[in-house]
Amino acid sequence: MVMNYAARMKLVKPSAIRELLQLGEDPSIISFGGGYPDPSMFPVEGLAETYRHSIVENGATTLQYSASNGLRRLREQVAARVTRDGYACDADQVVILQGAQQGLDLVAKMLLDAGDVVLTENPTFLGALIAFNPYQPRYHAIEMDEEGIRTDAVEAFFRDGGRAKFLYTVPDFQNPTGTTMSLARRKRLVELAHAYDFVILEDSPYREVRFQGEQIPTLLSLDSARPDSDGRVIHLGSFSKILAPGLRLGWAVGPKPVIEQLGLLKLAADTQSSTLNMAAVSRFLDTYDIDAQIARIRDVYRRKRDVMLASLRQHFPQSVRFTEPDGGLFTWLTFPDGFDTARFMAEQAVPHAKVAYVPGATFFPTSAPTNYARFSFSTQSDAAIQAGIGRLGALLRDAL
Amino acid sequence: MVMNYAARMKLVKPSAIRELLQLGEDPSIISFGGGYPDPSMFPVEGLAETYRHSIVENGATTLQYSASNGLRRLREQVAARVTRDGYACDADQVVILQGAQQGLDLVAKMLLDAGDVVLTENPTFLGALIAFNPYQPRYHAIEMDEEGIRTDAVEAFFRDGGRAKFLYTVPDFQNPTGTTMSLARRKRLVELAHAYDFVILEDSPYREVRFQGEQIPTLLSLDSARPDSDGRVIHLGSFSKILAPGLRLGWAVGPKPVIEQLGLLKLAADTQSSTLNMAAVSRFLDTYDIDAQIARIRDVYRRKRDVMLASLRQHFPQSVRFTEPDGGLFTWLTFPDGFDTARFMAEQAVPHAKVAYVPGATFFPTSAPTNYARFSFSTQSDAAIQAGIGRLGALLRDAL
Repeated sequence: MVMNYAARMKLVKPSAIRELLQLGEDPSIISFGGGYPDPSMFPVEGLAETYRHSIVENGATTLQYSASNGLRRLREQVAARVTRDGYACDADQVVILQGAQQGLDLVAKMLLDAGDVVLTENPTFLGALIAFNPYQPRYHAIEMDEEGIRTDAVEAFFRDGGRAKFLYTVPDFQNPTGTTMSLARRKRLVELAHAYDFVILEDSPYREVRFQGEQIPTLLSLDSARPDSDGRVIHLGSFSKILAPGLRLGWAVGPKPVIEQLGLLKLAADTQSSTLNMAAVSRFLDTYDIDAQIARIRDVYRRKRDVMLASLRQHFPQSVRFTEPDGGLFTWLTFPDGFDTARFMAEQAVPHAKVAYVPGATFFPTSAPTNYARFSFSTQSDAAIQAGIGRLGALLRDAL
Repeated sequence: MVMNYAARMKLVKPSAIRELLQLGEDPSIISFGGGYPDPSMFPVEGLAETYRHSIVENGATTLQYSASNGLRRLREQVAARVTRDGYACDADQVVILQGAQQGLDLVAKMLLDAGDVVLTENPTFLGALIAFNPYQPRYHAIEMDEEGIRTDAVEAFFRDGGRAKFLYTVPDFQNPTGTTMSLARRKRLVELAHAYDFVILEDSPYREVRFQGEQIPTLLSLDSARPDSDGRVIHLGSFSKILAPGLRLGWAVGPKPVIEQLGLLKLAADTQSSTLNMAAVSRFLDTYDIDAQIARIRDVYRRKRDVMLASLRQHFPQSVRFTEPDGGLFTWLTFPDGFDTARFMAEQAVPHAKVAYVPGATFFPTSAPTNYARFSFSTQSDAAIQAGIGRLGALLRDAL
């Protein structure tokens, strides 16, 4: 039959990078494409023990339905970590989600009517656009520089009469650019949110994967520290990068009335997250040292970043620029104007160098510039990073 | 701040039964409220082994991201079971979901524009209304009788010029009534779907929990058997009632183009279901005898149903009628006109008999009759069923 789909389905399309990411499954290809954690960092023994305990000792409750907002103990644990990170909160201000990705879906569902404007960084996280699109927003993409989103451009948008429901940002080690928003920009962004009455959706899955420098306060904590704070930041976090993404556990934290609304949407969307996964992660946090686990991850990813940046410096033409991230999984490459990273990958990088990455066009909400690429350093070995960047560099020296 | 919510949030409200279900957590109350499986039926040893194996032997993949549609092996296993149940299909016609509840959300998201009509049974599953509401449908509720939905009323709706995007039905041991749709009605409903061009959303989480009688073919299989079949049934299934709800695993099966659209919405909503849970359930299906597990569940629930029905016959006034389900978790009680089951529960049943159930009004999409109640027999022991029904019956003999 010809299905009579909802209008929103016109905005729901297979991602252009879906097939590219499948190249990552070809063992002959060195892929810098996927934003996956390094599986050698998964705490296999600890998780094996926590799952065993959760099933054998508490199966009657861990295998059963539980609360749609998430297990209370886990919400308390998340609240304690968020409080330590500068935003004093309790378990009622936390809803456990099916990864931070579900927070993108549910916040859009909560706030967006068709045609509402969402402000994003330019470029921005593709998964956010995929989550927002079914709610039929219009995007206004704000330029970034080395300090993150250009708050002067945000201000100009509103001063010129623009209106927006929310601004979406990944302030820490952004996907795709690796850029971190400066403290001054964060403070200014919160000021603008108050002045122009918009919500900030702060998505920070990589926040704890910082290699160097001091943590910069979250937008959530900066907003709450204002004397006139009325709670206009919703913060998303995740266990995917510090524990394991296959458990699909993240959270939203923010003002209690907003979290209650998100809890109702969580119930509507999928009843609840997996009780077993929540119970096992909660026990892991009670039994093992997650901060030591995070320290190990930081050390490994710092080394991989160093290997990738050194390889890029050694092998790539100087006309290719790249960011030097203080954390996270990605560096962002800017090729000379007119260069087409998608075409180069299809015609040169994959067939001749057996290397894949993500061409940058897909990360731009309202344009599709061809001369960018996202490289992830998280999953490949040091030797594979050196080999892959070396082979690409040899091709590029001919092409550029 | 005063949040500027989307218009759909007017339809997202805390459920009236949310607090009632919390009575189930009070150990002094015998609750027939929640539709929970009996936790003593959870295959704890098997799941402990499959999780151990999945984490220890395959942690690098089971703890990692995987495919948004679900692990291929698990989709193959579901497709094989669905094929055995009369609908020949392959893995590409299956998408693994965060419980069947997520299928309700995603199908509504795929099909509904604001104001579109959804046909439901009257009464219907509350969780479906909760999932559909954010997409701002209008409901037209079709009366039921002992053969399930009244297809003559469906036909009358369309003959009178009605239009609807889809019809939602729980044909097997319906929640809340326990009623099963007859074969004749199923055939007629599929005919009507073709004649009047609507989609059928067949939600059958209890299908394998049949106590007696032969399985009746699914609407999915009846539709596909028509020579003019063009694939207008989407079928939802779940591991919640045959394995454990705390794993949050269900599926949608149907025509491949529709499943592809649902897969895109799944990616947008939460990236994917838990790789670990999918891998462990897949191994459970390969290693253990799920059909023997289902047979044990059937035997236990059949006995519990028998105990509850016998207790109702013995203790309740004859003016209270109840359904005699062939499977599932629920019986549906009809009290005399004018009786208020919610008020009786708050004023009498809970304080004086220490018994809870679900008043029926909440299951009706467009009305709120007061003289119905849903009783679940799945979680209480035989003795608790007898005691609770006995105490309620004593109160009712005074009240009626």
